[in-house]
Amino acid sequence: MNRHAMQHIVDSSYCFPVSEKEIVLRLRTARDDIKAVQVIYESKYLFGMQQQRAYMTKSHTSELYDFYSIQLKLEDTRLAYVFLVDDGEKSYFFSEDGISESYDYTLGYYNFFQYPYINKVDIMKRVDWMKDAVFYQIFVDRFCMGDTTKDTSYINCNWGDIPNPKTFAGGDLKGITSKLDYIRATGCNAIYLTPVFQSISNHKYDISDYYRVDEHFGSNEDLKELVEEAHKRGMKLVMDAVFNHCSDRMIQFQDVLEKGKDSPYFDWFFIDGEKPNQETVNYETFAACDYMPKLNTSNPEVQKFLIDIGCYYLKEYGIDGWRLDVSDEVSHDFWRNFRKAVKGYKKDAVIIGENWHDAYSNLRGDQYDSIMNYAFTKACLDYFASECMDAQGLAWKLNDLLMRNSDTVNSMMLNLLDSHDTHRFYSEVGENRFKMKAALCLLYLFPGTPCIFYGTEILIPGGYDPDCRRCMDWEKANIYGEFSDIYELLNRLSSIRKKYIITEGTYRIYACNYEGTE
Amino acid sequence: MNRHAMQHIVDSSYCFPVSEKEIVLRLRTARDDIKAVQVIYESKYLFGMQQQRAYMTKSHTSELYDFYSIQLKLEDTRLAYVFLVDDGEKSYFFSEDGISESYDYTLGYYNFFQYPYINKVDIMKRVDWMKDAVFYQIFVDRFCMGDTTKDTSYINCNWGDIPNPKTFAGGDLKGITSKLDYIRATGCNAIYLTPVFQSISNHKYDISDYYRVDEHFGSNEDLKELVEEAHKRGMKLVMDAVFNHCSDRMIQFQDVLEKGKDSPYFDWFFIDGEKPNQETVNYETFAACDYMPKLNTSNPEVQKFLIDIGCYYLKEYGIDGWRLDVSDEVSHDFWRNFRKAVKGYKKDAVIIGENWHDAYSNLRGDQYDSIMNYAFTKACLDYFASECMDAQGLAWKLNDLLMRNSDTVNSMMLNLLDSHDTHRFYSEVGENRFKMKAALCLLYLFPGTPCIFYGTEILIPGGYDPDCRRCMDWEKANIYGEFSDIYELLNRLSSIRKKYIITEGTYRIYACNYEGTE
Repeated sequence: MNRHAMQHIVDSSYCFPVSEKEIVLRLRTARDDIKAVQVIYESKYLFGMQQQRAYMTKSHTSELYDFYSIQLKLEDTRLAYVFLVDDGEKSYFFSEDGISESYDYTLGYYNFFQYPYINKVDIMKRVDWMKDAVFYQIFVDRFCMGDTTKDTSYINCNWGDIPNPKTFAGGDLKGITSKLDYIRATGCNAIYLTPVFQSISNHKYDISDYYRVDEHFGSNEDLKELVEEAHKRGMKLVMDAVFNHCSDRMIQFQDVLEKGKDSPYFDWFFIDGEKPNQETVNYETFAACDYMPKLNTSNPEVQKFLIDIGCYYLKEYGIDGWRLDVSDEVSHDFWRNFRKAVKGYKKDAVIIGENWHDAYSNLRGDQYDSIMNYAFTKACLDYFASECMDAQGLAWKLNDLLMRNSDTVNSMMLNLLDSHDTHRFYSEVGENRFKMKAALCLLYLFPGTPCIFYGTEILIPGGYDPDCRRCMDWEKANIYGEFSDIYELLNRLSSIRKKYIITEGTYRIYACNYEGTE
Repeated sequence: MNRHAMQHIVDSSYCFPVSEKEIVLRLRTARDDIKAVQVIYESKYLFGMQQQRAYMTKSHTSELYDFYSIQLKLEDTRLAYVFLVDDGEKSYFFSEDGISESYDYTLGYYNFFQYPYINKVDIMKRVDWMKDAVFYQIFVDRFCMGDTTKDTSYINCNWGDIPNPKTFAGGDLKGITSKLDYIRATGCNAIYLTPVFQSISNHKYDISDYYRVDEHFGSNEDLKELVEEAHKRGMKLVMDAVFNHCSDRMIQFQDVLEKGKDSPYFDWFFIDGEKPNQETVNYETFAACDYMPKLNTSNPEVQKFLIDIGCYYLKEYGIDGWRLDVSDEVSHDFWRNFRKAVKGYKKDAVIIGENWHDAYSNLRGDQYDSIMNYAFTKACLDYFASECMDAQGLAWKLNDLLMRNSDTVNSMMLNLLDSHDTHRFYSEVGENRFKMKAALCLLYLFPGTPCIFYGTEILIPGGYDPDCRRCMDWEKANIYGEFSDIYELLNRLSSIRKKYIITEGTYRIYACNYEGTE
């Protein structure tokens, strides 16, 4: 038996409640190393005297490990347990003190594993509508121009020109509203919008007024109308919360630029010196962008300012949740307070972090519901694009990713093949339509919530930003045209998700290597 | 190379900030498996282009694993890193995607390990006085009777009689105040008191009025005097917060007993039915004690009630912190709110949980500072008492325990050999004075804060509760008497802790098997 591989971590993705009386346990062993695993369990106050036993199921296999799991229904949730691992020759106990051939239950209170009590307030709840959601991500400036009466002098290209970092193409909220039926026709029923608030850039991740929709994109009324029209069609709308940083044009930073330490907003930012200096950049920023000063989310005033914004659009505009930009660089403390405020107002508002990496420390139930699943993206790239991974490797990797988080989180993961921050997946797979379709099948049938980037349905190609942000080609956007097979596939996948109850139940991922044909 | 053993978990006890610019990284490998480990790191926005390297130190070894660690000082705390592991023959990269022979830094943003940014508010701060503290735990009814004027009719034994569960011996707060100089003479400079609030039991873990010192123990004035006199002597005082449950005599439970669902306090408890029934016990309790109904700490009203108590004694009585009874069964959400309130009022108030097991999910910086380290107790029992573990095994086990938590938490762990909830350690080692002294040496020199149970200095024996709670024998409590060697040892150990800076710096634990002689 490979003792080094065996792992169980209490109160973690290895042990989490899913209801007030139910808990999931996972045990990791080396792959193909163990014949059977039982969990020996009981209410902790009785464990020294009596125990129950149940066999666990080998539910997930990765390159190195097997994961055994079980969902226990408990009368008394003060759970004590150890594992009994049978390697075919011998049985071993596995407790907090490690692996042993015998186990003294009467001293168990020192070293059993435990989930001490399921407190209702600590149970992570699934946002139920996420299980039926299929997201369509829109980069607003490039999707559709709907307002023909607006001042268009800021537009500096023709619709369809290959974009550069300074391109303004004219897309706006009215344009999105006019295309809601179209989006519905792609099989999507939820929209994730990149930022829409006042900002001088085309991407608007540098916000100068969080309470005003940028005039390029329309008005606050247009936002209200968009949300209302989406809701009328049974669609959800999630917006982009850019709380890690702001624009240097935001009045608070402008005040600090002018008054330095005498500004009441000095501690809203991280300034090394008396005053921010935009030549030497003596203040912290997003990445190395001097025009995006980093906000100090350890400061309670900043927390209040941002959390108020988070609640305002839920209350006044009825949006359905937030995608959190650069969320991993913002404090845990901030997200805890943010979650309390947001969920306190709207229980089923979804909170989706932008963490490209293992985000378990943000996904314990006290901060976000899920993240943009770029680890899934990477696995798809490795298999479908660079082909450095075969089907077996992909299955192993996907199982590894599922074991990072609880089932609850997995059921809300925002899975994606690409976004405004990556190359277009279609280009990554060498514009191979068969591969693209196969990847879409995986995307839609994987645990979690799929998200496609606008134009995926017409196979828009593109390299890294700005090339991935090309204008939507409305001439090609015809469900009966040259991309009818893609539209059909997306719609079939959406309905399969619902009809065949893929959004509930347990997943098993296996590999089957085969020769693909177009 | 043993690939199954290799482990690193981001934003965990494997990766934690210790200041705004410093972070500790740990990597786990199989024991004696690896020649050298380097961390390859850089600001995440530069990682694709350049990297720094540093060798890690093999700092801790357990039975199965070696732990390599390093403390990095960073300019830019947006840290990306991978490990380079040399097994003597070959070097391997270890990233979020696992072990590989090559690594593409330009795609690192998908799979490097990261600590995205050190937010000040997320850094766990050490309670500085804990590093110099040596605790003396007092079970109040059995320590000393100081109030000779009180109504003593409740006392039902002679001082020194072997106690039973219903014994009242007469110890009180005035008694403790009168013995502060004595406690100081044992080398201790901090006191942890079991509960003192109104309660009909001798242990007072069933509290009926949290705002009143029980009359057996004296008055609220006596508590104030005790704290003031302790502080005059440079001593700290920590009290017992019993927030998991209360007494069935508390007015809120009494109200529910009377009015059932019509009581405003119905949701303060967990009642299955219209009304609590003390015959059938249709409500949740501590363990199986029908007279200790469990409090619903998911209820915001209960949270406020208990947190107010937590703050009241800090504000009005100046106590130095709380030990949290049955803390593991209380919600994380409650402890987060409790910490915010307590630390908001008194930054250096200490919060010590009673979790007998791995409590990392409570020790991430948002809940407690430390726990009563019963896993340390168990290791000492296995080595000194049952001798089922040799010196090498003990060293390995202690290293394992240190790797459960961050260095910050380790430096505040309340290490103990015994308490009111265990057998007396002296009895566990068969009243072997040499073993007892050796164990005390380990207790005092181990990372964290030592805590001795009253009477340890005169080697009071005793089995499990109630036997471990025998009366303090004041005739034997003479620093020049038959236990002078123990007093001297405790004092020397206390001063060694301070003089030789054992309370700062890095620990290495090695084993050396030898034949002990008395």
